[in-house]
Amino acid sequence: MNPAGTSRKIELLDTTLRDGAQAEGVSFSVRDKLAIAAVLDKLGVPLVEAGNPGSNPKDVAFFEEVRREPPNRAEIVAFGSTCHPGAAPADDPQLQALLAAGTKTVTIFGKAWRLHIREVLRTTDDENERMIRASIAWLVGQGRRVIFDAEHFFYGWRDDRALALRMVAAAAEAGASVVCLCETNGGAFPEDVAEATRAVIERLDGRCTVGIHAHDDSGLAVANTLAAVRAGAIHVQGTLAGFGERCGNANLATILANLQLKLGYDCIPADRMHLLTPSVRHIAAIANVVLPGGLPYVGRRAFAHKGGMHMDGVRKVAASFEHVTPESVGNTRRFLVSEQAGRSAVIDRIRAVVPEIDRDDPGVDEVVRRLKERESEGYQYEGADGSFEILIRKTIRPYRPFFALERLRILGEITVQPAHSITTSAMIKVRAEGHTEITAAEGDGPVNALDNAIRKALGRFYPRLGEMKLTDFKVRIIDADAATAATVRVLIESTDGHRIWTTVGVSYDIIEASWLALVDSVENKLIHDELASRP
Amino acid sequence: MNPAGTSRKIELLDTTLRDGAQAEGVSFSVRDKLAIAAVLDKLGVPLVEAGNPGSNPKDVAFFEEVRREPPNRAEIVAFGSTCHPGAAPADDPQLQALLAAGTKTVTIFGKAWRLHIREVLRTTDDENERMIRASIAWLVGQGRRVIFDAEHFFYGWRDDRALALRMVAAAAEAGASVVCLCETNGGAFPEDVAEATRAVIERLDGRCTVGIHAHDDSGLAVANTLAAVRAGAIHVQGTLAGFGERCGNANLATILANLQLKLGYDCIPADRMHLLTPSVRHIAAIANVVLPGGLPYVGRRAFAHKGGMHMDGVRKVAASFEHVTPESVGNTRRFLVSEQAGRSAVIDRIRAVVPEIDRDDPGVDEVVRRLKERESEGYQYEGADGSFEILIRKTIRPYRPFFALERLRILGEITVQPAHSITTSAMIKVRAEGHTEITAAEGDGPVNALDNAIRKALGRFYPRLGEMKLTDFKVRIIDADAATAATVRVLIESTDGHRIWTTVGVSYDIIEASWLALVDSVENKLIHDELASRP
Repeated sequence: MNPAGTSRKIELLDTTLRDGAQAEGVSFSVRDKLAIAAVLDKLGVPLVEAGNPGSNPKDVAFFEEVRREPPNRAEIVAFGSTCHPGAAPADDPQLQALLAAGTKTVTIFGKAWRLHIREVLRTTDDENERMIRASIAWLVGQGRRVIFDAEHFFYGWRDDRALALRMVAAAAEAGASVVCLCETNGGAFPEDVAEATRAVIERLDGRCTVGIHAHDDSGLAVANTLAAVRAGAIHVQGTLAGFGERCGNANLATILANLQLKLGYDCIPADRMHLLTPSVRHIAAIANVVLPGGLPYVGRRAFAHKGGMHMDGVRKVAASFEHVTPESVGNTRRFLVSEQAGRSAVIDRIRAVVPEIDRDDPGVDEVVRRLKERESEGYQYEGADGSFEILIRKTIRPYRPFFALERLRILGEITVQPAHSITTSAMIKVRAEGHTEITAAEGDGPVNALDNAIRKALGRFYPRLGEMKLTDFKVRIIDADAATAATVRVLIESTDGHRIWTTVGVSYDIIEASWLALVDSVENKLIHDELASRP
Repeated sequence: MNPAGTSRKIELLDTTLRDGAQAEGVSFSVRDKLAIAAVLDKLGVPLVEAGNPGSNPKDVAFFEEVRREPPNRAEIVAFGSTCHPGAAPADDPQLQALLAAGTKTVTIFGKAWRLHIREVLRTTDDENERMIRASIAWLVGQGRRVIFDAEHFFYGWRDDRALALRMVAAAAEAGASVVCLCETNGGAFPEDVAEATRAVIERLDGRCTVGIHAHDDSGLAVANTLAAVRAGAIHVQGTLAGFGERCGNANLATILANLQLKLGYDCIPADRMHLLTPSVRHIAAIANVVLPGGLPYVGRRAFAHKGGMHMDGVRKVAASFEHVTPESVGNTRRFLVSEQAGRSAVIDRIRAVVPEIDRDDPGVDEVVRRLKERESEGYQYEGADGSFEILIRKTIRPYRPFFALERLRILGEITVQPAHSITTSAMIKVRAEGHTEITAAEGDGPVNALDNAIRKALGRFYPRLGEMKLTDFKVRIIDADAATAATVRVLIESTDGHRIWTTVGVSYDIIEASWLALVDSVENKLIHDELASRP
């Protein structure tokens, strides 16, 4: 039930893994999806819409995996559609796949705009209503909580109010727990969204919750979502980083910050709000997508001050040019000429590595200083916990690296004439345990050759390195303006079967950046082996 | 005069060259500024706020230049502030510089929020009002049309309505032609903007025009601007590509498309609307900034369809998943070719390259076959239109590549002892135009070295390659389980200042994958140059 103004609790549904995966350039592996679900869970997002098992075989594998290791608190939601025209839900393989995903809550979408009913589905209004009623009733009968996504609701409303209302009323009567009004084409205005949302709430008369799902094609997804909430919607869909088809889904990070920090709504636990920025950046790192620097609240530039008068104003009173504090969303203020430290944000992360550290330990300031320095070089630690741990250990306590590079050489050759061949080899000279070792290895590409060479050289000293393997490898240009001559950030994910850790390296040379990430990865393994072997 | 609802004519002011230059990473030369002013002029933006001659010596040079070669229709506006506390306008060097810029219209900003008056300016309300009145009256006396930017107006309104109104009324009484209400911190909501704008219009009672200037810190700049216009504001400030301090200024491209295509306002000549997308991209190219692909109306992804149901819907009725036609804003529809895409999606893309092809041409099936084959190897064409075009051309018609590789060798070395050094070089032997060329180049990393070597080797045959540059470079491991030994997908984005194209290469070796993407990129440039040179 959501009469306007009586509830301040908003139910968030993140659909990064489903609608967000419709974005160009975004493609998630099952492992990526599990990692993103974990980020959303930790942030306190209650509903994670994770895929369409009826149309995507990869998603079936995800739902199997996630049943074995469910998130702590977040609920995983499977997505599908109503049955097809003329068909019974029980005979629809797509709805069976939806059930088989084994989630308590399912979302199904149906049509609320005559254009789609007639021209896309090529059916009648009556049959469309039957499909909605029958599908929802059948899913409810199978013990599912159903969210009904009324696709194109606002275009339907503009075209024929009675028809649009009839479809959502049918969904509510059939037992849907949430009727979510979808602004699918992204072309509506806040005034229209507010008016239509109020009319739906009045028509459904408390029979079920009303939600909003918006797209950003007119630059109004956030405004439209807020308009619906102010009109009484209490279920809000979006994607945390704004990923989605065309211009993207409503950016859930912007929305939840607006709702919770400014309008007094309750979206996630207040003590998680400082995780907002790292969560969005972590998702972007997993998706290998560069976030726009100007993203509200969480962008790299969101609290960056460049104008002289602005910097002067912020130094006198932060609120003079900042609408919220950067700390409130886990972001940091940046004066573009002289970087300034955001200390408190880092302490929690240091304590995860060195629990006994005192708040006033000078090491904390030194970590903050080095972090800023590294970040200005292009490092980004949100997606690289393994490297951040090394940075903390090297800074807080005396640290003796397990090995040191003296030289490395990579040789890659491609021959087309007279015959096609590719070879890559790496030569490496390292110092470890008081000895020098020089060796070489071949590989499939320079990073693989380097990885093989480093294991071969160090294996003599640290045989447990054999347990470790690299599981993912991502490369990003940071300063895209200079392209191939720009700074390169390499992220490497490693595992030894027990732990998974991610490390980062930055250089203008991809080989050096890969080397730096590899070194952190190997050091991280050796540190943890040493810690585990202590009594 | 702007009583709400009586005028549909909106006066746009673009401040890319002034507020937009406050964005991180944006820095304009005088030449850049002239080029951007020309783009805005051609689009039909009537007012171009171009700099602050009183605080920026580079801007003085711009105003001198632009007086010699003024835009056809657009008017150049100089920007400054009111005089300082305790000073007379005539004695203020900053206001003298503003006059010396020689523009008919000037913008000056003044304070409308007590926090700023007290804590930043450190003066009294009375003195602040005197500064506004005296500065405007003096400028008007010197024959200038004055736009008064009421900085932080909406925060001032929230804090003390009477004070905020007093400052804008003073500006109007002193002779300002426009009172522009500035949402400087980007933290206000559309409802508040609408209410305050209505109150100002009522208070000023037709004495001058009311304007709006918003920032995007809450993701609401567009919505706030529209709210002000609906409340009666008829002067709208923003930046065409959304550049600006922190999260950016209100995106003028989004706003003008919303106002003109959907709300019936009149912003630019209707026959220029198709210049919207090229204008925004041209400005981004001059600024050397990569635009977010999801920018409403003008982004690369704004009309890109990936989901199978969406593509199916758009093919049946474009309006089913598009809020406006891409042509109306000079953008193009893209059906992303992905695993889910069927034959009909491919035909549309083939026709974009070979318009005359018949639906049943056997070449179509051959493209589909090769596409599936390449995708199974790890290629992904949805983000690589440049490579897809090459694939189509090679398949549909006999294709003679512009050049062929015979050999390449990459050597990368990192030395730590005795001194730290990194060098990367590439040797390349290619055949082009019946000749063989062997050469070598160094670079910042292997891809850059390769890029340098290929241009050096081919520059002799194709000098126009000098126009082209790489603007982005992405690497992704496809089969993450095998990590460094897995297949690598490289995406390269290139531009020659007119077009942007993306190409892809896949190999287990990152060097070969980069090479393949580079080859497609260069071939794409050469094909388009050849096509353009045909009669």
